[in-house]
Amino acid sequence: MPSAFDPPSGTRDFLAADMEQREHVFAVLRSVFARYGFEPLQTPAFERVDVLLGKYGEEADKLVFKILRRGEHEASGEADLALRYDMTVPLARVAAAYGSQLPTPYKRYVIGPVWRADRPGKDRYREFTQCDVDTLGADSLMADAEVLCVQHDVLAELGLPEFTILLNSRRVLTGLLTAFNVPVDLGPGVLTSLDKLDKLAPAEVVAELIGRGLPADQAGELVASLTADDSMERVRVAVGKTDDGEAGLDEVDTILSLLAGQVPAGRIAFAPRMVRGLSYYTGPIWETMAPGVAGSIDSGGRYDHLIAQLGGPDLPATGSSIGVERILPVLPPADGRARGRLEVAVTVMRGDLAPQSFAFAAAARSAGLRASVYLGSSGKLGRQLKWASDIGARWCLIYGEQEHEAATVTVRDMASGDQAQVPTADIGTYFASVAREAS
Amino acid sequence: MPSAFDPPSGTRDFLAADMEQREHVFAVLRSVFARYGFEPLQTPAFERVDVLLGKYGEEADKLVFKILRRGEHEASGEADLALRYDMTVPLARVAAAYGSQLPTPYKRYVIGPVWRADRPGKDRYREFTQCDVDTLGADSLMADAEVLCVQHDVLAELGLPEFTILLNSRRVLTGLLTAFNVPVDLGPGVLTSLDKLDKLAPAEVVAELIGRGLPADQAGELVASLTADDSMERVRVAVGKTDDGEAGLDEVDTILSLLAGQVPAGRIAFAPRMVRGLSYYTGPIWETMAPGVAGSIDSGGRYDHLIAQLGGPDLPATGSSIGVERILPVLPPADGRARGRLEVAVTVMRGDLAPQSFAFAAAARSAGLRASVYLGSSGKLGRQLKWASDIGARWCLIYGEQEHEAATVTVRDMASGDQAQVPTADIGTYFASVAREAS
Repeated sequence: MPSAFDPPSGTRDFLAADMEQREHVFAVLRSVFARYGFEPLQTPAFERVDVLLGKYGEEADKLVFKILRRGEHEASGEADLALRYDMTVPLARVAAAYGSQLPTPYKRYVIGPVWRADRPGKDRYREFTQCDVDTLGADSLMADAEVLCVQHDVLAELGLPEFTILLNSRRVLTGLLTAFNVPVDLGPGVLTSLDKLDKLAPAEVVAELIGRGLPADQAGELVASLTADDSMERVRVAVGKTDDGEAGLDEVDTILSLLAGQVPAGRIAFAPRMVRGLSYYTGPIWETMAPGVAGSIDSGGRYDHLIAQLGGPDLPATGSSIGVERILPVLPPADGRARGRLEVAVTVMRGDLAPQSFAFAAAARSAGLRASVYLGSSGKLGRQLKWASDIGARWCLIYGEQEHEAATVTVRDMASGDQAQVPTADIGTYFASVAREAS
Repeated sequence: MPSAFDPPSGTRDFLAADMEQREHVFAVLRSVFARYGFEPLQTPAFERVDVLLGKYGEEADKLVFKILRRGEHEASGEADLALRYDMTVPLARVAAAYGSQLPTPYKRYVIGPVWRADRPGKDRYREFTQCDVDTLGADSLMADAEVLCVQHDVLAELGLPEFTILLNSRRVLTGLLTAFNVPVDLGPGVLTSLDKLDKLAPAEVVAELIGRGLPADQAGELVASLTADDSMERVRVAVGKTDDGEAGLDEVDTILSLLAGQVPAGRIAFAPRMVRGLSYYTGPIWETMAPGVAGSIDSGGRYDHLIAQLGGPDLPATGSSIGVERILPVLPPADGRARGRLEVAVTVMRGDLAPQSFAFAAAARSAGLRASVYLGSSGKLGRQLKWASDIGARWCLIYGEQEHEAATVTVRDMASGDQAQVPTADIGTYFASVAREAS
């Protein structure tokens, strides 16, 4: 039931457990990106409206959150700023703004929120994290291959058990249409239908193609070729006879040979009927599928003129968008929770003994442990042990009058209930050994 | 000169060097917070306007960025959402929304941008990072002391060479006003003037106090007490005679005793004339000063009823806001740059040798080094060595025809120009030893 205290529709609050898992994933991403020499970039949450609007068409513009002008201009009801819709328009602006100050090629990554006024739904948010890794200024297919290596390493390092990167080229698709004599104006629709061969029966796709205006025999032949046992060979032969198709197959084969030593064979496959919806791709395209994830978990390709269309310089470009919001739900949650766990809880049995409790906690932290002192007002041990248990502490330090007089501290193992007396002077050494055990 | 490609007024793009320093600082902050058992929280960039507006008064409301309604409602010129102005209003909403699901006390930290439509100026931005650490639900002064420990540890761990935490209590200030018979209605103005004793000459402050309506002899006596050589004793005696003052001195002394073992004596000082401008503080207050930084680099205090005033439950609360934007400029920049440095550059002398270059880079990364493959189109060694030098690589791997035939790779030390031949089969072992040297 929505309450007045919920976050705005389509947005989320991330409390500790979520945050820790998210931060863990972001840390893995940053580490892989850096290992490949990709540089971090961060741009403002909002851009001027003229920078943002009119770049992806009217439908996209409707999804942009616009910011009202301020002060005397507020009453005008006009917007001068807007929240970023993606990370590519800001990248184009950065490429234009900093030009020669940037390395060539410019390899950058970005992890951050974008905002779209979509109708909120299951797994569809108005504020979500986008993670892009792109190389500007490199014509070479090595740049595409490198992005694919990054994409593979990210998923492998996150421990995703099963995934396959599907690789294709826009030119293979163009060659496919030519080879099967598909009229140019039917091309995009035909590709959209062929992309459904994973979900629909061949006969259904044939019917859809006929509905789009393709003659029945041609539709049948096309679908038969793409679904035959030897479809890969048949497509290669047919497509290879066209100029575009030959060039596209070359792109795919070059990338596969560059990845041969880096990406296990089962993790990447040529997928000649895979279509990336976005029309701005100009060369190789790819997307990653994983069991249990609807749609692709990441995707990308070469988009050689988009940066110019978005207002930047005309640079060749290639990159991937990594679907962190789709990856997060399929990762084992235990990992994040375990990392966030507090190790040491310290009781405060009497106000005047609190400085000593603070010192014990500090000693635990010096040994690399997470430690928290009881901040409540109860002087009852049972109450404080319950607190230690609630926060998930592994050990609880008890320091009351008895311990104070004996110059010891009681260390209670919260799982077993075992207690040990440790001389206060030895507590640093004790924590050092405990820290080794905890790590 | 502003260009069409600049980020919006008052905002910034963070390129690699800035980002790496910022990420380093955020990582230190997160690590210290976690060590004390503070949990991360992240709320959406925007809140509903009714949640955000009317919480800090009209002046603050004018600084809020409001988001235009969408679709058919856009033409109304009305706003339904607004970018967050601080992290405390969202905290109040979270406390109300999740109540019993949160630990008691709820210790949380948050690091993220906030937006204020202030007039941009030197070091004044419209988008800036706020970093808050707060404890809700703890009456005990131990909670205040713990926040101060965190604040100290953060600055110490960041390597800030000099800083002093000034500690006071609102009750000491109330006692001060009572002790010197300052009329209640003049109180806030008098405190504001006294706070300037660090910047203005005593006579100037006396003049300001008289201007505010304080009788001349009273103004003179007050300033004399606060600036005398034995001012600390004089203030303690005078303030201690009032109920509020006595309670305030107790707060200060309790906190100082809790911190005695944790925060070196020179790092924290009772500052009886230190005034935090914000009226919502109810108990201890503090701020940190550092040479070279105008204003405080962080500040905080106890604000026991603010959460309720902001729409949340009525919980005692204490916390600090750490001025990361003020800390960043005074940190040594070298640290961030060195960390971001690329270690290994790999040449591609001929297209058909590229898969081998990819494999070398992968071997370097497996050994924990950062490696990048040349993605340009030049087959000239000089050009590729210039690239390796431009990106700051420590070693460059050269793998041309000669190396290919000899089954070796040339490793060039980019600083000395020394070159070594390493058998390709041994490159993994070689990198492992190089990695030890690099770390």
